[in-house]
Amino acid sequence: MFFEGSEKKAEIHIDASQLNLLTDINYDFWCELVSCCNAQILSFIENPYCKAFLLSESSLFVWQDRFLILTCGQTHLVNSVSFFLNNFDNALIKQVIYQRKNEYFSQAQPSCFGDDIKMLSNIFSGRAYRFGELDSHHNYIFHQDNEYQADINDKTYELLAYQISKHASEHLTQANLTKEQIRTFLCIDELLPNFIIDDYVFDPYGYSLNAIKDDQYLTIHVTPQDSSSYISFESNLNLLELAPKILQILKPVSFDLLAFNEAAFEDQINTVIPDQYVSSSLVCNTLSNGYLVHFANFIQPQTSFTKPVMLDISGEHHAL
Amino acid sequence: MFFEGSEKKAEIHIDASQLNLLTDINYDFWCELVSCCNAQILSFIENPYCKAFLLSESSLFVWQDRFLILTCGQTHLVNSVSFFLNNFDNALIKQVIYQRKNEYFSQAQPSCFGDDIKMLSNIFSGRAYRFGELDSHHNYIFHQDNEYQADINDKTYELLAYQISKHASEHLTQANLTKEQIRTFLCIDELLPNFIIDDYVFDPYGYSLNAIKDDQYLTIHVTPQDSSSYISFESNLNLLELAPKILQILKPVSFDLLAFNEAAFEDQINTVIPDQYVSSSLVCNTLSNGYLVHFANFIQPQTSFTKPVMLDISGEHHAL
Repeated sequence: MFFEGSEKKAEIHIDASQLNLLTDINYDFWCELVSCCNAQILSFIENPYCKAFLLSESSLFVWQDRFLILTCGQTHLVNSVSFFLNNFDNALIKQVIYQRKNEYFSQAQPSCFGDDIKMLSNIFSGRAYRFGELDSHHNYIFHQDNEYQADINDKTYELLAYQISKHASEHLTQANLTKEQIRTFLCIDELLPNFIIDDYVFDPYGYSLNAIKDDQYLTIHVTPQDSSSYISFESNLNLLELAPKILQILKPVSFDLLAFNEAAFEDQINTVIPDQYVSSSLVCNTLSNGYLVHFANFIQPQTSFTKPVMLDISGEHHAL
Repeated sequence: MFFEGSEKKAEIHIDASQLNLLTDINYDFWCELVSCCNAQILSFIENPYCKAFLLSESSLFVWQDRFLILTCGQTHLVNSVSFFLNNFDNALIKQVIYQRKNEYFSQAQPSCFGDDIKMLSNIFSGRAYRFGELDSHHNYIFHQDNEYQADINDKTYELLAYQISKHASEHLTQANLTKEQIRTFLCIDELLPNFIIDDYVFDPYGYSLNAIKDDQYLTIHVTPQDSSSYISFESNLNLLELAPKILQILKPVSFDLLAFNEAAFEDQINTVIPDQYVSSSLVCNTLSNGYLVHFANFIQPQTSFTKPVMLDISGEHHAL
């Protein structure tokens, strides 16, 4: 069964002196926002800093002055973004950032990045970039071009693992796997000590996790099936530091690292990335909104020939 | 200006004792076949073995007992295949092979590989494979599953170069470049001594070449623009032997090698691929039609950070 794990992502920063997203916006509004992209809220956790919603396709995090939404599958996230922007006075909106990763089957998506940014450009003016090459892993970023300047301490990290090991894929696609078994496999207690956890096992497989502790958050989305496996981590914890542990568990053939405002990115990857990986893409830029963005794709060079994937005519994929 | 250089490819083998494609089929038929995928014939050359047509989008080669068509851009090649199959008795058709490469913008294509093979499966039964991973370079192959067994001497090679050097891209996108200048840049005289050549320079850039000598053929298609550069070579000459020269000229960041019935593929790549490249994908299989297929993708590991590509809202790409 094919599923597009690759997420679209939007982050909107607002003026919290005029609108506090934690106290002034009710649950029904977030339900409606999420439904605009054809997803729904499954559950939520909260602490004084953050509300974290687990979605049928990925996650929504809400803080006092901003929210972050990631949606995978065939969701049409740009519709949720425009729903939010159309519901509030432009003066409230300090910054909009919209991202899309390379997809496994982009032709199955309801829109492409070009369509999305044309739609958003009708609401605000922005700049668009592609980090990484078109024929390889890449990340599209579109952001509002205004006077907003990011706090240099506002750091975000993404680790995106592709083609996880056969062992990890087989383990995570077992029938009747429990949350506890998946948490144990992913070493959640070690990675996230003392976090509030909200997680969900999808049928027949797939797993999502939201975790919060004070102002820290981490979200994991697992598309484990062989031939389109994808596991994403997004956090304001330093995922470069956690990368060796994550890579040891998943042993992906390829992974991407993306960081916002991590000045030591280059030094850190030189230290933490295991020797068996080489970089196929290294891209860096400071956006006009003040965010320093680093993107890197790593691959494990192959030394022996494998068999191709056999496809059946209905479009399902089987390992040969 | 973005252009999808990546080709679809079809090869149909027929029973030449019943139908000789060189003598029994007229020019108008090939024109109609080509028009079915929204391409057109620009020119043609021939020798006693082969007719080679240069198309508005790539090439068509016709031999006595088979033809090969490659089309790029937004052509709908599967329509040309079904046009041919619907015009002749099934008993004439010995083997059909249909291929698609990974595309830069698959969402802009009129169909995906899954759509294409569903359509072809209504005409004949076949097997489909993906050589290479979905999130990286890959090649889809669908072939008729019948008693046909390929001649082990029927060898075909493809070399597909991505992200050619800035120098090569700038040279090949110069205004008013002549055929002679492009032939010189690509060292055609050295690569193809004594071949009959038919080539075409597209406006504002882009270049196609067909070359034949006795039963040997080679075709080159050049999409030189930075950020979606792609140059393909297909031939029954051993492109593994020519690879060092081609790579020296184009210096691509990434390239694919594909070979049909080259038993020494692994030994040859170990000998001819320059040290600065590593393999991100190695796939091999013998198809039920007797073809031994090897696929390999190579990349140049990156060691320094580059700037992202800036996109304008209308979808055009500019180097930042």
